[in-house]
Amino acid sequence: MTFAELWAELLPVGRDEVTGGYRRYSWTGSDAACRAWFARTATQLGLRTDCDRNGNLWAWWGRPGGPQAVVTGSHLDSVPDGGAYDGPLGVVSAFAAIAKLRRDAFRPARPIGVAAFTEEEGARFGVACLGSRLVTGAITPDAANALRDQDGVTLAEAMVAAGRDASRIGQDEELLAGIGAYVELHIEQGKALADLGAAVGVGEGIWPHGRWLIEFAGRADHAGTTRLADRRDPMLPYAETVLAAREAAERRGALATFGKVVAEPGAANAISSSVRAWLDARAPDEATLDQLVSEVWAAAQTAARQHGVAVSQRRESVTPLVSFDSGLRDRLVGVLDAAGIAAPVLPTGAGHDAGVLAARIPAAMLFVRNPSGVSHSPAEHAEMADCEAGVSALTAVLADLAGR
Amino acid sequence: MTFAELWAELLPVGRDEVTGGYRRYSWTGSDAACRAWFARTATQLGLRTDCDRNGNLWAWWGRPGGPQAVVTGSHLDSVPDGGAYDGPLGVVSAFAAIAKLRRDAFRPARPIGVAAFTEEEGARFGVACLGSRLVTGAITPDAANALRDQDGVTLAEAMVAAGRDASRIGQDEELLAGIGAYVELHIEQGKALADLGAAVGVGEGIWPHGRWLIEFAGRADHAGTTRLADRRDPMLPYAETVLAAREAAERRGALATFGKVVAEPGAANAISSSVRAWLDARAPDEATLDQLVSEVWAAAQTAARQHGVAVSQRRESVTPLVSFDSGLRDRLVGVLDAAGIAAPVLPTGAGHDAGVLAARIPAAMLFVRNPSGVSHSPAEHAEMADCEAGVSALTAVLADLAGR
Repeated sequence: MTFAELWAELLPVGRDEVTGGYRRYSWTGSDAACRAWFARTATQLGLRTDCDRNGNLWAWWGRPGGPQAVVTGSHLDSVPDGGAYDGPLGVVSAFAAIAKLRRDAFRPARPIGVAAFTEEEGARFGVACLGSRLVTGAITPDAANALRDQDGVTLAEAMVAAGRDASRIGQDEELLAGIGAYVELHIEQGKALADLGAAVGVGEGIWPHGRWLIEFAGRADHAGTTRLADRRDPMLPYAETVLAAREAAERRGALATFGKVVAEPGAANAISSSVRAWLDARAPDEATLDQLVSEVWAAAQTAARQHGVAVSQRRESVTPLVSFDSGLRDRLVGVLDAAGIAAPVLPTGAGHDAGVLAARIPAAMLFVRNPSGVSHSPAEHAEMADCEAGVSALTAVLADLAGR
Repeated sequence: MTFAELWAELLPVGRDEVTGGYRRYSWTGSDAACRAWFARTATQLGLRTDCDRNGNLWAWWGRPGGPQAVVTGSHLDSVPDGGAYDGPLGVVSAFAAIAKLRRDAFRPARPIGVAAFTEEEGARFGVACLGSRLVTGAITPDAANALRDQDGVTLAEAMVAAGRDASRIGQDEELLAGIGAYVELHIEQGKALADLGAAVGVGEGIWPHGRWLIEFAGRADHAGTTRLADRRDPMLPYAETVLAAREAAERRGALATFGKVVAEPGAANAISSSVRAWLDARAPDEATLDQLVSEVWAAAQTAARQHGVAVSQRRESVTPLVSFDSGLRDRLVGVLDAAGIAAPVLPTGAGHDAGVLAARIPAAMLFVRNPSGVSHSPAEHAEMADCEAGVSALTAVLADLAGR
């Protein structure tokens, strides 16, 4: 089984015919189809499949329990109308690398695992890396059970509807104790490798980042009869906050985005009663992130006051700065160098399960070149040759880590 | 049957238990319940009920065909989470006035009709006053059939699903020819009557107004990895346009509102691919409205260009300035004055079926005091005494118009 064969099989699953983007949301029908693909592929490779208490998928070569395992993988879920590569590239490359090791008659000294973590994007329940956060205890079962999707369905209800037991979610020390290293391969979501002319890179760390819900509460009124001076229109301070966030991010060398906004009641001829908006903020260090978010919040409060609107904020998730294990990172660079693969070391502003797991186990990342830098979009793309270079790199890394 | 009795019967229909607001969208279950209430009430009053080719409801005292009829009424549909009064007050008051005339043994010399027009708010299909526009030919059947609700259901499909024949919608000359005057009673959607200390007012005219869809098309990208300089984020020019619209409306003594906005794909960690937003604009005269909309559009284009985003606009509906028939208006003022009811004459920024019908038949409006001015909100309210004053005023007007 080559990378191209495995890739072609997964490609149609959960793709929207109109947009060409993916809508693989956790515990939905398209998610079930992705899980079925995972199980089928693992079985074909002679791997034993398993689903952990938190709904993450595993495929094992060798039995965990002896020496600590080497795990690779990523996630299969997508943002709304996401691209084909973000997540699946890591899982498909993992299987392709194992197929290659099998063909090479490699005999692992340690178990090798392939993981597909659930709800990495947070597209359904609003918390990114939910599956890996549950495993490591970065989110409590109570907090996870309180999450609802936009139809009001809880995580537990969604899991039960998908035929899973939702009563045992939470920290999984037994699982973590069996893992010696986690290496996640992922498409790069920027243009650094393209600018450097390299097909593959090694992750240095992940910028601290988080998501804040800012809610502006005004008063619903008729758009045609309410004097401007009598209005409490929450859309106005929202607009000012969007512009203030961009300005502050620019000034601080950071990133700020409002990509999700919900105006209620949402009628063209009614002033909104409320505008809820999500701030995604990222910065090279934690102090800068704090300053950025404080500044956006201050701007939101000032604008709200000027328009007679109430405003509140809630931190939905924050991931601190992640520096990947330097020993593991250096070992990856050395292995790739020995294999003749020039792999520059890069930081990233994107969160990944590897970043969450890094709090508990040595973790590392490999990036594959993205020529346009576009991600979270149907236009996301990587060249087949670069994907194959990623598989070669991952194969060399697994052989090294699991071979001694 | 008193006003209070009729009012209490309709009040629970289509009310959301959580928000306390109404969700009476045309051709839905709550709409069917409103229609059933209309038919039941009309029958109890000895009126003959009818549904015209465009789905508008009618109840007749006397047979149209002889002298031209006097029609009163309003609509039963609501904006999302609208109030109880906007629309229903006019229909309930019409039935209450007829009940009063019956009790007074009034014998009409002309037929009296009660109308409930469909989709006045445009909440489902996006075009306000759709029912009256179809009757008068202000919208063609083809244009109406091309309208879709947010689930992609066409008007024709919705009508058929509700058990109606959708093949004969369109201009209804026979119906219009039988009507000599239309008087719509409506809750005021501002505070002018409250400021003047009057329970009831007479409409002078309706500000020209309309709805424009502005679509900003950018590029979906990952919020965590796309450099600010590489972004084409449509949320930014949208925010600038919201603020520019408010500023321009203030400067021109007009109204501009963005109450509906849809960001795609709508994920917190993705830069939007598009932001669609609806501008509701109103002004005292048509030249000012044109200038206002041109200015907002120019601001949208400038902001879009600065952010590398494409922008397009589409006029969804425009209603020109309506001056109500001066003869009919003066007659109403005279009748109310003779009945001892002081009713000031007021303009309004809100569209109404009376404004659409005014293009073809003499039309007039009565307004009932709204102490807070709040409308299109669950908090919309009128005092029972003012509602009863409205019924008295409407009764006097119907007696005058249908009596000679």
